Amino acid sequence: MDKLQKNERFSVMTKMLSDSPGKIFTLGGFAEMFGSAKSTVSEDIDIIQNLFSKFGMGVIETIAGASGGVRFVPTLSISQINNSIDKMCDELKKRERILPGGYLYMLDIIYNPDKVSNIGKIFVGQFYKREIDYVVTVETKGIPLAFMTAKYLNVPLVIVRHTSEATDGASVNINYVSGSSRKIQNMVLSLKALKRHSKILFIDDFMKGGGTAKGIIELSKEFECEVVGIGVLVETAEPKKKLVDNYFSIMTLHNFNEENDNIDIKPSMNWA
Amino acid sequence: MDKLQKNERFSVMTKMLSDSPGKIFTLGGFAEMFGSAKSTVSEDIDIIQNLFSKFGMGVIETIAGASGGVRFVPTLSISQINNSIDKMCDELKKRERILPGGYLYMLDIIYNPDKVSNIGKIFVGQFYKREIDYVVTVETKGIPLAFMTAKYLNVPLVIVRHTSEATDGASVNINYVSGSSRKIQNMVLSLKALKRHSKILFIDDFMKGGGTAKGIIELSKEFECEVVGIGVLVETAEPKKKLVDNYFSIMTLHNFNEENDNIDIKPSMNWA
Repeated sequence: MDKLQKNERFSVMTKMLSDSPGKIFTLGGFAEMFGSAKSTVSEDIDIIQNLFSKFGMGVIETIAGASGGVRFVPTLSISQINNSIDKMCDELKKRERILPGGYLYMLDIIYNPDKVSNIGKIFVGQFYKREIDYVVTVETKGIPLAFMTAKYLNVPLVIVRHTSEATDGASVNINYVSGSSRKIQNMVLSLKALKRHSKILFIDDFMKGGGTAKGIIELSKEFECEVVGIGVLVETAEPKKKLVDNYFSIMTLHNFNEENDNIDIKPSMNWA
Repeated sequence: MDKLQKNERFSVMTKMLSDSPGKIFTLGGFAEMFGSAKSTVSEDIDIIQNLFSKFGMGVIETIAGASGGVRFVPTLSISQINNSIDKMCDELKKRERILPGGYLYMLDIIYNPDKVSNIGKIFVGQFYKREIDYVVTVETKGIPLAFMTAKYLNVPLVIVRHTSEATDGASVNINYVSGSSRKIQNMVLSLKALKRHSKILFIDDFMKGGGTAKGIIELSKEFECEVVGIGVLVETAEPKKKLVDNYFSIMTLHNFNEENDNIDIKPSMNWA
C-alpha cells in the first residue's frame, strides 16, 4: 500500500477507533499499517485525543503496559448529557403518552437509534471502569438500550427471557417477586449464556419496585456471577425504597398516575 | 473556535459521518463549522470517500440537489462479507450446537455486538437504496440484528410482540399461521408504532416456512404500510417453498435434524 498522507492517517485511525469501541489498538499496529514511525503515530493520537475531547466525541483512553495501546470509549460531555436528557424529559411530558393503568408510552424513545445511542453513551460513562464482562437485560423493551451499551463496552449482550424456548438449550429457571405488583414471575437463562465468575451490568428501560433487578442478582448467583452495576432509563419516585440499593437511573418519574394532568419527569441527578 | 488543521478536519468529518449513518451532511455546513471554503471541504470529502472505499470502511454517498450533501452508508466490501459469513458458518458448524428438537444454538452469535454489526452492514448493503422508513422485527432473538440495521439506516426500529402489554397502548392484533408447525400464532403491534403509507424492512434471525414474514406482511397492510424488503440471517433449505417469495438470506442450513452428525450450513449466495 502507498504510504498514507497525515490527513489520511487521521481519517483511518479515527474510523477504526470509533468503529470498535472498547477494542485496544497498539501504536505499533498503527505504525506498521501506515509504514510510519511509532513516535509519529503517538503524536497523531495525541492530537486526535484532544480533538475528540474538544468536540465531545468521546474519550480516547491510553492503556499502559505490555498489552497497552489506545481504545475509544463512547461517552457524552456534560452539556451533551444535559441536552439529551432535557430533550427526552420534554418529549415524555406530553399528555397523550399517559396510558390506562398509569403507564407511560415510551416505545418511540427506547427504539429510536439516535436516542438509544445517547442513552448507551450515558450508561457507558457511568460503568466503563468496572471491567464489565456482559451486559444483561430482560426481554423485551430494554433490549435496544442494553445492546447499544454492550456494543459500546465491547462485551456480549445476554437476554433473559420469561419463558424458556427450544433454542435456548438447557437453561436455569428462577422465580422472583415483582417489586411493585408482588406477583411471582419467572426468569429463564440458557446455561451457556454466561461464563462463571463474570461481572455483569444489568440494563433496563424502567424500574418501579426493583424486583426485576433483584431477580437478575439472584439469577447471576446461580451462574456464580456478580452484578457490578445496574442502569435504568426511568425510575419511579415511588416506592422510594427499591428492592436493590445501588443503581443508576437517568430520569425519575414523580407522582404518576392515570388521573394526573401533567407528567412530572426530571433528570435523576444534577450533572452540572 | 480556532481554525482546524487539515488533518483535524479529516478526523472530525470522519467521526461525524460515521457516527450518524444515513444522515445527510451539507458541504456548506462543514465549511461553516471549520471556517473553510466549500471547495476545500469538497476536496477533503473526495479524499475521505476514496479512503473509505480503499479500506473497506463503507460508502460515502453524494446526494445531489438543493437538499444535497454527503451521507455515510455502513457497508462491507465483498471480501469482508465473505470473511464474515465464512467465519460464522465455521462457528455454527460445531456439533455441540445441536439442540433437542432439531434446533441450533445461535444466541452467542446473534447477541454478539461485533457479529451483529457485520450482519447489519450486510443487510444495509442489500436494502439501503429502497428508501426504508422502519425496520420491523418480532420479539425476541432478531431484535439486536434489527436494531443495528435500523441504526445504520437511520430509521426507527419497531418490535412486534406475541402478546399485548399495557405499555403498548391501543394495539392491532392479528393471527398468523406458522409456516413450519402450522400452528396459529398471535402478533400485536401498538397503533402508534407505524405511520401510514410507510416502507418497511422486516429483519429476523431465522426463517423456516416463512410464516412470520407472511404475518408481518399482513400486519403491515392493517397499517397501510408496505414490506419492501425481508432479510434473515439463516434460512433452512427445507421447505424449499416458503410462504413469502422475495427475501434475502445470509446463510442456509441444509438437511438439518437432531440425528445429523454434522451441521451443513453455507452462505446462501455466491458473493464473488
